[in-house]
Amino acid sequence: MSQERIITFTTDFGLTEHYVGTMKGVILNINPAAHIVDISNSVQSYDVLDGALAISQSYKYFPSATIHLVIVDPGVGTSRRPLLVRTERHYFLAPDNGVLSFVFEQEQERLEVRHITADHYFLQPMSQTFHGRDLFAAVAGWLSKGIEGSAFGEQINDFVRFAAPKPKVMAPGTIKGVVLKVDKFGNMITNIRPQDLPELFQPDAHFRIIIGKAEITKMKTAYAQGTPGETFAIVGSMGYLEIATNRGMAARMVGADKGSDVGVVLEGAASTGA
Amino acid sequence: MSQERIITFTTDFGLTEHYVGTMKGVILNINPAAHIVDISNSVQSYDVLDGALAISQSYKYFPSATIHLVIVDPGVGTSRRPLLVRTERHYFLAPDNGVLSFVFEQEQERLEVRHITADHYFLQPMSQTFHGRDLFAAVAGWLSKGIEGSAFGEQINDFVRFAAPKPKVMAPGTIKGVVLKVDKFGNMITNIRPQDLPELFQPDAHFRIIIGKAEITKMKTAYAQGTPGETFAIVGSMGYLEIATNRGMAARMVGADKGSDVGVVLEGAASTGA
Amino acid sequence: MSQERIITFTTDFGLTEHYVGTMKGVILNINPAAHIVDISNSVQSYDVLDGALAISQSYKYFPSATIHLVIVDPGVGTSRRPLLVRTERHYFLAPDNGVLSFVFEQEQERLEVRHITADHYFLQPMSQTFHGRDLFAAVAGWLSKGIEGSAFGEQINDFVRFAAPKPKVMAPGTIKGVVLKVDKFGNMITNIRPQDLPELFQPDAHFRIIIGKAEITKMKTAYAQGTPGETFAIVGSMGYLEIATNRGMAARMVGADKGSDVGVVLEGAASTGA
Repeated sequence: MSQERIITFTTDFGLTEHYVGTMKGVILNINPAAHIVDISNSVQSYDVLDGALAISQSYKYFPSATIHLVIVDPGVGTSRRPLLVRTERHYFLAPDNGVLSFVFEQEQERLEVRHITADHYFLQPMSQTFHGRDLFAAVAGWLSKGIEGSAFGEQINDFVRFAAPKPKVMAPGTIKGVVLKVDKFGNMITNIRPQDLPELFQPDAHFRIIIGKAEITKMKTAYAQGTPGETFAIVGSMGYLEIATNRGMAARMVGADKGSDVGVVLEGAASTGA
Repeated sequence: MSQERIITFTTDFGLTEHYVGTMKGVILNINPAAHIVDISNSVQSYDVLDGALAISQSYKYFPSATIHLVIVDPGVGTSRRPLLVRTERHYFLAPDNGVLSFVFEQEQERLEVRHITADHYFLQPMSQTFHGRDLFAAVAGWLSKGIEGSAFGEQINDFVRFAAPKPKVMAPGTIKGVVLKVDKFGNMITNIRPQDLPELFQPDAHFRIIIGKAEITKMKTAYAQGTPGETFAIVGSMGYLEIATNRGMAARMVGADKGSDVGVVLEGAASTGA
Repeated sequence: MSQERIITFTTDFGLTEHYVGTMKGVILNINPAAHIVDISNSVQSYDVLDGALAISQSYKYFPSATIHLVIVDPGVGTSRRPLLVRTERHYFLAPDNGVLSFVFEQEQERLEVRHITADHYFLQPMSQTFHGRDLFAAVAGWLSKGIEGSAFGEQINDFVRFAAPKPKVMAPGTIKGVVLKVDKFGNMITNIRPQDLPELFQPDAHFRIIIGKAEITKMKTAYAQGTPGETFAIVGSMGYLEIATNRGMAARMVGADKGSDVGVVLEGAASTGA
């Protein structure tokens, strides 16, 4: 196996401190030929769901044998286990706290999960506060050099996984979802997918979406449709219903944020509000 | 042609979401030897002028045959065309919305602009919301592997270009410009260049620059001249007149921002204010 | 010497402008095989101490022969000297303003400091406002190609170095320190190290730490100990005493920030407050 392996970073360590750079140093000291790529180091602090979304949206686009480091780790230094996961095409290193839940969901057919215990691969002395550096980066370095996964620990089956928050059916044709995240453009990505309410996504659908102080009645297929400043619904690149504003910040326009309720009422259905 | 090509990113996709990382995955999946370098992914959202400035200031410093991805694309999913541009030394991939205007200005002598239509190079199914991933990153990957530019589409001449906002002459020796951007240091980069008012940049020039609540009468040649906290004018590394504060945030000091007016009055000229 | 050298960036240039990308272009134009890694480009503007901390915490983790670019340079364009530093394993390029002070402290036994004067390696014409691009990046490029350090200038001994701000002993068992920085998680990193007050770090120590509006009496060894929202003291990965909140932002919880006083009183010692 070539040493020129790609290693991606999805972490909440931020770009203001040296943390991410130090982890890259650890990897390159072990394998100078590693090719490190940032997915995002600005996952919301401690937010395992936000990290789970980011990696689940991006990992499939990378070449086979890519190693994905996914470190959102509020439990660092406790008994939570460090994991090495192998799917059909990729490897993942992450704490056992559910941050790989959506990867697990997509890769059920071929999933090998190991509890990393081989501490001779860790930096010594190992801190209790920065396993990203002392454990995960070091293991990524050795794994990228072609060490077999089985060398790092035994397989387990009782790893942590959680389900994505699903929208609730309040009445026939009426569902209530939530804003999963607001992106840099102010687009509000909800947890509502086309399969949750297929009628909503028909070309001739009539509906009201209640979010923040706004009531939205239009569905578009591109952000630039409608007039500048217009707010509408759209299925975004993540596969979820988004609320967006043409050349504007939808979250600011409607006064909603991450965690806000999103009510959807199909015309003719009994309204239950948001 | 070697596969070890450099591909740069100048986008408004931000670093908080997975967008930029996903695009890098698409490129590396096509050409694992691509060498990706960020110029900036924090261009102001939807701000084509801000993106045009960033790429025009940086592209020339990169080696020959570098491929520059420039994605500030408020019209994604509409009929705006995707472009492949070749200049004497570089390649550019960008939407046809003027974001390459200042590159076009600097590269008039050797300019080949193509409308990308060869959709067998795109990711399928192609979204209407993320051409950065499905179209531009994929084309960058194939182009970096040595596919000829002509394979991606026909040459066109009616591509979009706009002129940089020029300062206005209000009276002899009196001009009015605008703040193009405020950088991380609080330096305000104006649209005024030495050729717009050469007398202003003479060593013995006497002048007043009116911006925000400040009147500036000193020109320096280094940010650290004068006393800490002093605000002055300087020709910055971008070739424009900047308003800067020694070890301080000029924009905050004078109460101005991107888009603010900048009035310049040479001593002896009739004042028209800012 | 191989051309595939690692070059790290620790700068205050930020990610919003093209500055960092342009510097990378300059390096790659000289040495396309250079492998550039960001430690952080979000050092606080003009803050030499913040940059000194970042590089001192991270450089040792990188492979031998890594070239570290450390550009926090409020004096750019003045007579402050550009330095090329060689330690036992690494190279550093930085302005002579103390930003390498903590590296010097750790590398006293093998330290070679040169004043870079060989201006035929600089970009021409050289600006007075962006030596990161015109001088440091260019020298990094040539150095990474194997040019000997001695080619860039003469050795000097009178380079600038400052001591880290040390906590003060106010009375026996009572010290006063300061918050050096607040990280992305809201953890407040103080300048107090275990050797400054060893009794504080005994398992059975009784103490009060006064910071902002809080009085802290508990020491933990992992961020996730205690209950969510609890604020405590901990020795962090940087080797300093930190004030942290389990899954919260300690700085916000206690109302303190960079530069805030931190008073430590061992039980039985006379209190002097913070």
